[in-house]
Amino acid sequence: MNRATVRRYTPRQLAPELLTQLLEEATHAPTTGNMQLYSIVVTTSAEGKRRLAPMHFNQPSVESAAAVVTFCVDLNRFVRWCEASDAVPGFDNVQMLLAGVLDAALVAQQFNTAAEMRGLGCCYLGTTAYNAPQIADALGLPYRVLPLITLTVGYPEGEPAEAGRLPLEAVVHYERYSDPSPEQVKRLYAEKEAREDSRGFVAENGKQTLAQVFADVRYPGAVNERFSEALLDYIRPFLGGKKE
Amino acid sequence: MNRATVRRYTPRQLAPELLTQLLEEATHAPTTGNMQLYSIVVTTSAEGKRRLAPMHFNQPSVESAAAVVTFCVDLNRFVRWCEASDAVPGFDNVQMLLAGVLDAALVAQQFNTAAEMRGLGCCYLGTTAYNAPQIADALGLPYRVLPLITLTVGYPEGEPAEAGRLPLEAVVHYERYSDPSPEQVKRLYAEKEAREDSRGFVAENGKQTLAQVFADVRYPGAVNERFSEALLDYIRPFLGGKKE
Repeated sequence: MNRATVRRYTPRQLAPELLTQLLEEATHAPTTGNMQLYSIVVTTSAEGKRRLAPMHFNQPSVESAAAVVTFCVDLNRFVRWCEASDAVPGFDNVQMLLAGVLDAALVAQQFNTAAEMRGLGCCYLGTTAYNAPQIADALGLPYRVLPLITLTVGYPEGEPAEAGRLPLEAVVHYERYSDPSPEQVKRLYAEKEAREDSRGFVAENGKQTLAQVFADVRYPGAVNERFSEALLDYIRPFLGGKKE
Repeated sequence: MNRATVRRYTPRQLAPELLTQLLEEATHAPTTGNMQLYSIVVTTSAEGKRRLAPMHFNQPSVESAAAVVTFCVDLNRFVRWCEASDAVPGFDNVQMLLAGVLDAALVAQQFNTAAEMRGLGCCYLGTTAYNAPQIADALGLPYRVLPLITLTVGYPEGEPAEAGRLPLEAVVHYERYSDPSPEQVKRLYAEKEAREDSRGFVAENGKQTLAQVFADVRYPGAVNERFSEALLDYIRPFLGGKKE
C-alpha cells in the first residue's frame, strides 16, 4: 500500500548475490504455458547505462541506478529450442507476441515487488517501446527478441513522493463495465485534480485543466503517433496474421 | 519462491472486504504516467461465470473460482475525462494501446501477488486475448476498453503442482543478449525435458520431443494464426499509426 516509484538513488551498488536472488524470485512469476517467453537483460556497467540513457531521453534515473533491467519479449529462445528438437514453431504472430508481452510484464512486476520488499526502489521506463529498435541494437537483441519495458533499480535517495490513485470505483466494475457520464468522470478525477502537485502542473504548463497537461504536454497525439509508426514498423513481422 | 498456479478451488467464497482490500492493493501497482489505463471487471455471480466459461474454452477453473477477474486496457475513461475537461486526446494508437497493456498486466500481477500472500490461489487465463471481442461483449466493454488477461481466484483445493522454471542463465543476460547455440539450448532445456510430467506429455501425445508438444499440440501455428487474425481485426483501430 505504501509503495511508490523511486527515481533517485544513492551511489550504493547492488550485491551480485542480491541481484541474483531478485532475478530468481522474479522468474517464479506465472507465464503463458510456462514457456517463459521473455529474456531479462541486466545493465550494471557505467558504459552500458551511458549508452542506454539517451534512448530513455536521458531520464536521470538511468545513469544513477545501480542496475538498469530491460525486460524483453523473447520468442527466439523458444524457436531455437524447437530447431534443436525437430519441432516446427508457428510463433511469428500477434497472439504469441502478446503472450511474450504479458510474460515479460509479469516477470518485471514480480522483480519490482521483490526489489521493493527488500528496501530497493524502482522506476519503470515506458520509453523502452518508444525507442525499441535502438535499444535492441544496444543490447544485441536478435530477431524475435523485443525490448518491452525497463526498470531502473537502486537504493532510494530521500523519500519518494506518493502519487495517489483514482478511487477504486473509477477502475473496478462488478459484473459489467459502467461507462462514466461527464459528471461522473469529473467526480472520479476530482481528488486527483485537487492535489497540490496537479494544480502545480496545470499552472506551470499554462493549461486550464489537468487533462490538458496529459493530452497536450505529456502524451500529445502527434508524438504518440510518431512513436507508434516506429513501433509498428518494428513489430510488423508479427502482425502479418498469416505466417510467411 | 514457492508460489504456483492454482486451478482447483474449494467452494469457499471471497469475503467482499477481502476482495476490496486486494483490489486496493493491486491498484497501487505502477502505471504509465500514473494514468491507470486499465479497468478491472470482477465476476462473482454464477451466471456471469457461466457466460464467460466457454470464452475460456470451459477451463474448469472459471466456474469453480470464487471470482473471475478480467483485467482490461482502458483508454475510454481517459478519453471521457478529456472530453469533460476541454482536452483533445490522441490515444488511438499502438503506443497508448501498449501503455494500457502494460498497465493492465502490472495491476493483474500485483493482484495475483496480494491474493497469494493471503493464501488464495490464482490462475491466469491467456485465452482472454483469443476471444477478446466475445468477452468484451459479455462484460459490456465499450470501444477503447479491451479485455487483456483474466485471473481466476479462490481458496486452493489440494496442493498445486510445482511447474519448475528454466535455469536463470536461460533467461538472464548481462550487458548483451547471448543467442544460444543448438548445444546450449538443449542444455538449458535439459532439466525441463527430464521432468516426469514432461516425459508424460511427450508419451501421451505420441511425440518425440517436448518442444513438439508445445509447437504441435498446445500452441500450433495454425491455431495461433487464426486467433491472431481475430485479434488483429479487433485492435485494428489502434494500429493505424496515424489518428483517423
